[in-house]
Amino acid sequence: MVSEKEVEKNEELEVEETEATEEVEASQEELLQAKVDELEDQYLRARAEIANITNRNRNEREQLQKYRSQDLGKKLIPVIDNLERAMETEVADDQGQSLKKGVEMTLESLRHALKEEGIEEIKADGEAFDPNLHQALQTMPAEDGVAADTIIQVLQKGYKLHDRVLRPAMVIVAQ
Amino acid sequence: MVSEKEVEKNEELEVEETEATEEVEASQEELLQAKVDELEDQYLRARAEIANITNRNRNEREQLQKYRSQDLGKKLIPVIDNLERAMETEVADDQGQSLKKGVEMTLESLRHALKEEGIEEIKADGEAFDPNLHQALQTMPAEDGVAADTIIQVLQKGYKLHDRVLRPAMVIVAQ
Repeated sequence: MVSEKEVEKNEELEVEETEATEEVEASQEELLQAKVDELEDQYLRARAEIANITNRNRNEREQLQKYRSQDLGKKLIPVIDNLERAMETEVADDQGQSLKKGVEMTLESLRHALKEEGIEEIKADGEAFDPNLHQALQTMPAEDGVAADTIIQVLQKGYKLHDRVLRPAMVIVAQ
Repeated sequence: MVSEKEVEKNEELEVEETEATEEVEASQEELLQAKVDELEDQYLRARAEIANITNRNRNEREQLQKYRSQDLGKKLIPVIDNLERAMETEVADDQGQSLKKGVEMTLESLRHALKEEGIEEIKADGEAFDPNLHQALQTMPAEDGVAADTIIQVLQKGYKLHDRVLRPAMVIVAQ
């Protein structure tokens, strides 16, 4: 038989034990919840990173694609210059004419190929001077009816690839 | 005063309550642990995806960069053909000679620009026929000392960009 005193003591002990277990479990739960919160945060950041990387890469690819012909295009500008200079040669006989015709056709196909890649001559003659597109090598007094800053002569053609200048046009500007 | 019977009953009740709480807490813990495991798995997958996307994009960029001149290069092949044909024109006078000299220099600078982009003529004359690089338009009986499948004449030059054929060489092969 258990005395009342002992029963009371046992009860007290039991209550203490239960409280202690609850405390441990609560803190275990808190730890797990903190871990869940942390992981959720990390996971959301990783998803955001994936979205950013994907967007950035799409933009990079588009830029690479858009300007892919920049280097080769730049090197082809002197080729066009040379062909245009060749076209200015005066020829006397049929062979010369035939050669010149060949050069003209070559020049046309070259210009066409560059245009398809987005490379075009910069408009200059008669245009308003734009320091982003044109380089003034000389100024001349404006004649009557010509506004100041108008390009009155192109010394060397300029070329651009879409919005990028490959070579500015070298010009004479009215002042 | 509490009777022994009542004390026993109270004890029983208390034990039952404690067990119930433990069960709830254990299942709450299990749920949280399952959530942690799931999130950890998702997070690891996301990191792996980031690594894959990054690698794939680097490869794509490298390929785009390597073959960026493919389209423009292809269009420049007929330009080279035309200039080479022009070079075959016989000229009599100085103007013709000067024009031809200009064409020759243009051709040189064009070949140079293409070479810098990785575009080169496909070796053909005297080489062993390779269906990946050459297209046989004709066969001819092999002369003494010439191995079968040797290219004995090039009808039209071929060009490649690195390892990619832009135009196969058109050839006559010994049989």
